[in-house]
Amino acid sequence: MNHVKINELRKWMAQKQIELAYISDPGHIAYFSGYESEPHERVLALFIPLEQDPFLFTPALEVEDAQNSSWNFDVRGYLDNEDPWVLIGKEIHSRYGQVQAIGIEKNALTVDRFDALSHQMNGTAHFIDLTPIIQRLQLIKTTEEKEKLIAAGKWADVAFEIGFNALKEGVTEQAIIAEIEYQLKKQGVSQMSFDTLVLAGTNAASPHGTPGSTKIVPNELVLFDLGVIWDGYCSDATRTVAYQKPTEFQEKIYQITLEAQLTAQEAVRPGVTAAELDQIARNVIDGYGYGEYFNHRLGHGIGTTVHEYPSLVSGNDLVIEEGMCFSLEPGIYIPEQVGVRIEDCVYVTNDGCVPFTTTSKELLIID
Amino acid sequence: MNHVKINELRKWMAQKQIELAYISDPGHIAYFSGYESEPHERVLALFIPLEQDPFLFTPALEVEDAQNSSWNFDVRGYLDNEDPWVLIGKEIHSRYGQVQAIGIEKNALTVDRFDALSHQMNGTAHFIDLTPIIQRLQLIKTTEEKEKLIAAGKWADVAFEIGFNALKEGVTEQAIIAEIEYQLKKQGVSQMSFDTLVLAGTNAASPHGTPGSTKIVPNELVLFDLGVIWDGYCSDATRTVAYQKPTEFQEKIYQITLEAQLTAQEAVRPGVTAAELDQIARNVIDGYGYGEYFNHRLGHGIGTTVHEYPSLVSGNDLVIEEGMCFSLEPGIYIPEQVGVRIEDCVYVTNDGCVPFTTTSKELLIID
Repeated sequence: MNHVKINELRKWMAQKQIELAYISDPGHIAYFSGYESEPHERVLALFIPLEQDPFLFTPALEVEDAQNSSWNFDVRGYLDNEDPWVLIGKEIHSRYGQVQAIGIEKNALTVDRFDALSHQMNGTAHFIDLTPIIQRLQLIKTTEEKEKLIAAGKWADVAFEIGFNALKEGVTEQAIIAEIEYQLKKQGVSQMSFDTLVLAGTNAASPHGTPGSTKIVPNELVLFDLGVIWDGYCSDATRTVAYQKPTEFQEKIYQITLEAQLTAQEAVRPGVTAAELDQIARNVIDGYGYGEYFNHRLGHGIGTTVHEYPSLVSGNDLVIEEGMCFSLEPGIYIPEQVGVRIEDCVYVTNDGCVPFTTTSKELLIID
Repeated sequence: MNHVKINELRKWMAQKQIELAYISDPGHIAYFSGYESEPHERVLALFIPLEQDPFLFTPALEVEDAQNSSWNFDVRGYLDNEDPWVLIGKEIHSRYGQVQAIGIEKNALTVDRFDALSHQMNGTAHFIDLTPIIQRLQLIKTTEEKEKLIAAGKWADVAFEIGFNALKEGVTEQAIIAEIEYQLKKQGVSQMSFDTLVLAGTNAASPHGTPGSTKIVPNELVLFDLGVIWDGYCSDATRTVAYQKPTEFQEKIYQITLEAQLTAQEAVRPGVTAAELDQIARNVIDGYGYGEYFNHRLGHGIGTTVHEYPSLVSGNDLVIEEGMCFSLEPGIYIPEQVGVRIEDCVYVTNDGCVPFTTTSKELLIID
């Protein structure tokens, strides 16, 4: 469990006069409590009061796992045939008395669960959004978190190497993904941070395309977008490589994307804004006349989840600080022709940034 | 896209005087529109008015994919630097005029998104929960849906066979999972329906345990819980097998679990209730004195998602009907000693049920 972050949360709660934080997002629960779980449709909750002891509320079948995690406080289990909201109401009342000001994650809590909680509070409590403080806490990574992100990043490098070695004429996108995930799992990586993408030729021109039975053919680009979860932290990186000699046009689009990625990466330092970084990458691609084909933001934060705050997008005036971690992933997608994306996640230092993945970004031609 | 289900939704909307349905859950969007997508934190929405044409609202980078799906109506894209809620407000107004009664999925929509939508409606619209009708629509599967679930179930059988063949002394749980998923992916299965579980020995005594580096040793039970997504539909099945000769106690617990599973399966028919089925399985295990170790519900619905309505749990008086599909998965978990779960998902016929998976449930002893 993360005492430091729980204390920071409590400081903020005190300022906002919030008596109790109800944390419902499984990723946030793992972040504060150290207990990782995917409860599906069952209710999993972490209650952190201002001063008294917090407690975890879990399905009965998770109690033992939760107790064996790094969580040091109470775990209250409930059976499938019990109404979790009635129990939650009773627990809050018996542990903390009358609670009037409750913090919730408005970006994670569903309307029905909010209604159920509100009902248990007799409709008299008021609710304050915890999203800003949780985003803020997760925004600046500790040294320990950075080390975990570095470790996750190294696995992305391993994954690229496996994937590049699997590139052969006639092999399908799916078979390459199978090979990458198989080799990683055999080496102890239990989870990818998202569905691995291997997109060949014009399939890569759809930025969120779905890999399938398309076979690798010579003289085309192949896009790899992948990441793992390692020790609770994610990696996320993209490389686009050529299978045998690319066309001049493919190479041109690649070099423009690379210039955009490197220019943005060189511009990262404390003091620049998220929107400025997005614009810096966009200016490069616009300058070559391909701006309309870079149709997504430059990047997103990364940590215990693969997409988190901040968003590197025009309009976001967030000032970059040391310790922030985010992706830089410009892309150019020209339908029916070519798709290139190059992505590294980076850690902001006091005068620049360091990528978590070190696989070369020079155009790799695989024969 | 599913015209039949959209029409049924509209009929219900007319009864409830709902002018517009705002569908936000990606699984529900896929169910109605035929367009499958995981938008992560981006807004993806399907708007179905009572009479006029519906439209899909997607991130710009998904527009092409959505247009290439089976969806026949408009796709409205938005860029990362645009405020999706302002655009949604404008689209609703320009397409459908003043809308006062909006249907939402209270079990999927987050509080912040609900607030944003409500704000765009100038705070004057009222909101009605669509959860009951969507659950109802998904509850009774069409013949076409049943065929897809059968196909997904067959892949679970294939997965078991791969897993059983991979069982060898000294092999880790993770390595067996890697082998199962690798072979499936090579055969064209692009996605598991949840993280595959292979739990050896006492690890299986935690019903939602996490597979890791535990190695297979002789004379213990190994639990496999797995499923795939095939053509948009899920499978989910569990088998527990013995690696070399089991102890008498392991075999006893296995046979009790099997008796519970088969007794419940034989009791499935139109007219019985969800709670009764749960009780029937529970009675078997209670009768042998192990009731306290069966600490979860008997089962859950299955379809385009791996866990959906109905829940087979005490207190749920839902009457089972022909066409419902759900899991029957009793388990006995005695901490530090033994864990057994046996699960098939079934399709309810006019006088019984048929399992989607056919791998034998007799105790398999692998040498």
